[in-house]
Amino acid sequence: MNSEKLKIAVLGGTGNIGEGMVLRLALQNLMPEGVKNEIIIGSRSLETAEEAAKKALSELENCGFDTSGIKITGMNNFEAAKAAEMAILTIRFDHVLPLLEEIKETLENKIVISPVVPMVKEGSFMAYRPPAEGSAALAIQKNVPETTKVVAAFHNIPADVVKCKAVHDALVCSDDEEAKKLVMELTRHMGCLKPLDGGPLKQAATMESLTPLLINLAKLNGLKDLGINFS
Amino acid sequence: MNSEKLKIAVLGGTGNIGEGMVLRLALQNLMPEGVKNEIIIGSRSLETAEEAAKKALSELENCGFDTSGIKITGMNNFEAAKAAEMAILTIRFDHVLPLLEEIKETLENKIVISPVVPMVKEGSFMAYRPPAEGSAALAIQKNVPETTKVVAAFHNIPADVVKCKAVHDALVCSDDEEAKKLVMELTRHMGCLKPLDGGPLKQAATMESLTPLLINLAKLNGLKDLGINFS
Repeated sequence: MNSEKLKIAVLGGTGNIGEGMVLRLALQNLMPEGVKNEIIIGSRSLETAEEAAKKALSELENCGFDTSGIKITGMNNFEAAKAAEMAILTIRFDHVLPLLEEIKETLENKIVISPVVPMVKEGSFMAYRPPAEGSAALAIQKNVPETTKVVAAFHNIPADVVKCKAVHDALVCSDDEEAKKLVMELTRHMGCLKPLDGGPLKQAATMESLTPLLINLAKLNGLKDLGINFS
Repeated sequence: MNSEKLKIAVLGGTGNIGEGMVLRLALQNLMPEGVKNEIIIGSRSLETAEEAAKKALSELENCGFDTSGIKITGMNNFEAAKAAEMAILTIRFDHVLPLLEEIKETLENKIVISPVVPMVKEGSFMAYRPPAEGSAALAIQKNVPETTKVVAAFHNIPADVVKCKAVHDALVCSDDEEAKKLVMELTRHMGCLKPLDGGPLKQAATMESLTPLLINLAKLNGLKDLGINFS
C-alpha cells in the first residue's frame, strides 16, 4: 500500500465527525510523511455523499490548500465500502449493526476502523453503555467476516481541523498488528494526535469509555476541548 | 473538621500502597495549606500495625522531616476504623468485602475512600474486572451503612513520595458533595496530584479502569511511571 494511494471509505462521512475525519485524511496528501489516500465518502444517499465530497474539496480550497493531488468522491455506503481498502465507521452506535448487515459482504480482508462510542445521557452526565460484547469494537468484530481486521481508533478527534491547541495521545487497539500499525501511521499525521499502541481489541472498552469521561470532566470542572495525555 | 486534626484510618496501611498513602498524608501536617491529620494504620494484627507506624515515622525522620507534629499509630482494623472519621481501603478488592463485614458497624456517618481497582492478569495484559455492581466503589457502597459517604479516589498514586516528575490529574467521585470536596483537598496536598471533580460515584468504573489501562500502555509503548492528564 506504500507506493499507491490507500482507498479509504468514510461511512457516515456526511455527519460532523465524518466531515472532520475526511478533511484530516485529505490533508495527509499534502504532508511529506502523510499517508497518501483517496477518500470515498459513504452515505445512505448517493446525492448526499456527492455533495459532501464537493463541500469538503471546496472547504480545503477556501482554506488555500492545493487540492489538485486530493481525491474525494461520494458513493452510497455499499459502493463506498466495496471500492475501498479501509472503512471508517463515523456513525452512531445504534446505526452500526444495521449498516454492517448491509455492507458485510464487501468487507472481506479489509480494515474496519471503529471510532464508535456507545453512550447515553443519564441525568446531567454522559454514561458509557457498551453492548453485551463488552465494547462497540467487539460488537463490530462479531458482525463482520472473519478476515476483516477491526481497529478501534479516533474516539477523540479534536474538533478543529486547523487550530492545534495541544497534542493529545490517541489509543489504537487491534488484534491485527499490521492493521494497527497502519492506523497508528494515519493517526500520526492527523494533526494534534500522537498515536499510542493500545493493545488487543478487547482493550477497546476502556478507550471508548474515555469519551463520556472527557465530556463529564469538562462539564464538572469548567474546562474546554479536553483531550488526554499519558505521561 | 477544620480546627482539629482529621483522624484517618489507613486500612491495609502495612502494604505498599498503604505505606505511600500514610507518608503522603503525614507530610500534609508540615504544609501550610495541607489538611492536618492524625493517621491510624489498620492491619489484621495489632503488632504489624504498630510496627508499620513506627517504620513510617522513622522513614520521615530519616528524610529529615520534623515529626514532632505528626501522629501515626497502629491498631487492628476494627479499632482503627472505630477511632477514625475517615477510612481509606488500601487493600486488594478480594479482601474488601470481608473487611467491610468485620468493621461495618464502625462506619456510620463516616467517609470511606476507595482507591480499590479490581483487576486481573489476562495473558500479558491487565484487565479491569469490576464486580456485578459495576465498580469496586459501588460494591463498597452496597456493603456499608446508608449514612457512610463513599468516595472513589487515589487510584493512581505516584510511586515515589518525594520525587515529583510531573503533576497528574486525579479524579475524585462521590455522591456526597462535602465528602468529595474534603477528599479533593487531601489530594491537592498529596504531592504531584491535581484533583478533578469526577462526578457521582457511579462514574467510578471508568476511573478504576484507568489503572490497568496505564499499566498496559506503559508496557506496550515502553514508557515508565505513566500518569494521566486531561487538558
